[in-house]
Amino acid sequence: MSTTLENKIKERWERINQESDQSDHPVESISLQALAAKIDHTALKPLTREQDIRKLCQEANDHQFASVCIHSYWVPLCAKLITDPLVSVCTVVGFPLGANSTAVKAKESQWAAEQGATEIDMVLNLGMLKSENYDIVTADISAVVEAAPKAKIKVIMETCLLTDREKVAACVCAQAAGAHFVKTSTGFSTRGATVHDVRLLRQAAGQDMGVKAAGGIRDYETALAMIRAGADRIGASASLAIVKAQS
Amino acid sequence: MSTTLENKIKERWERINQESDQSDHPVESISLQALAAKIDHTALKPLTREQDIRKLCQEANDHQFASVCIHSYWVPLCAKLITDPLVSVCTVVGFPLGANSTAVKAKESQWAAEQGATEIDMVLNLGMLKSENYDIVTADISAVVEAAPKAKIKVIMETCLLTDREKVAACVCAQAAGAHFVKTSTGFSTRGATVHDVRLLRQAAGQDMGVKAAGGIRDYETALAMIRAGADRIGASASLAIVKAQS
Repeated sequence: MSTTLENKIKERWERINQESDQSDHPVESISLQALAAKIDHTALKPLTREQDIRKLCQEANDHQFASVCIHSYWVPLCAKLITDPLVSVCTVVGFPLGANSTAVKAKESQWAAEQGATEIDMVLNLGMLKSENYDIVTADISAVVEAAPKAKIKVIMETCLLTDREKVAACVCAQAAGAHFVKTSTGFSTRGATVHDVRLLRQAAGQDMGVKAAGGIRDYETALAMIRAGADRIGASASLAIVKAQS
Repeated sequence: MSTTLENKIKERWERINQESDQSDHPVESISLQALAAKIDHTALKPLTREQDIRKLCQEANDHQFASVCIHSYWVPLCAKLITDPLVSVCTVVGFPLGANSTAVKAKESQWAAEQGATEIDMVLNLGMLKSENYDIVTADISAVVEAAPKAKIKVIMETCLLTDREKVAACVCAQAAGAHFVKTSTGFSTRGATVHDVRLLRQAAGQDMGVKAAGGIRDYETALAMIRAGADRIGASASLAIVKAQS
């Protein structure tokens, strides 16, 4: 067990507990265009069909969402359909359970990057996090970072299954591994993002990493609450409702 | 679109609808030892830890379950811990959503087989099945069969999301691809195996393929009902309760 990681987690956890309650970012409102640029427009249901993906990409081009977030099967098609240079192709790895072998997560990431994905949302190894094997958790993330060196890597920790200290530990591991974002949830577990979790991840991740809130965000007000709490990115399938393009 | 597959599905579906209701297999009871030999002793929860896997393997060796069924992260450890030659190491691929790219499913299968897995439970591409792209569904399964040629391949179709005709189509695709079993459920969707589905899969798969019932089977009586309906294999985490080694 690496004492370095252990110590970093201990220090970070103590620092957070000593800090006074963070006040939210004073964001009164946000333009719908600026909000769209923070949204990963997402379709991860297992029954998603080609026509759904075509519509998703069209909407992402039209509204300039940050990305389309889809399963790896759809990466080649999305890489063709996304024509706006401001919109990325984001895929998921080790999703949604995170218990695939590191070798498999790395191969999945490499393949997706070769096919045109420039953002990868990976699920960390939750069993290893729970059993405090931080070196393994970190090495698992590092392997993905190295397999897709040009991609933006977001580390999903599934906050609903973790204690606050485990969430902080996950942020420290993600940072040590060179990942770019931490992300709250898959949307396939017991609940999605909460304002509490986003605040905690923002405190724990520091200013160098992004925070993505995902799961259950279905309207403008909820999205804005997440941004006030410190989210840089929102994962949502109800993106059109969030930017009020449909109710 | 392959007219061959289309035609086979049409024929199989019509034949099943013309057949009189199948009577169940006249299995009065089954010895607990014979029942254990039909059970994939399963631990697929994302928070599963090393001590849980060690216990699972010990129980599988003790009771001579058919296999331990675990995520790919655990394959190397289970390959070491399973010492009884009657017990296999079974892992899952494209699990539980099935929308990974075929290339990734093949790599995952190859890696798992190299590490000692001899059975692979893969989720088929549900979106492609729903949109009747049977060639793609079949090629996706074939790639797994070819990537792990010595392994027994079980094709999970997630019956709770499908119509009866789609379940029959999945059986035809699995058979055309050279898979060895069809399997009802992942245990991570809206419900698990039903007697109706197991009967239908038994009729549709014919005698050359196995049928695995999984999801929600927690006692001897339910397991026996699945076997009467035509199941050759049971997936369960409550395996000890099923063989009455604990209540």
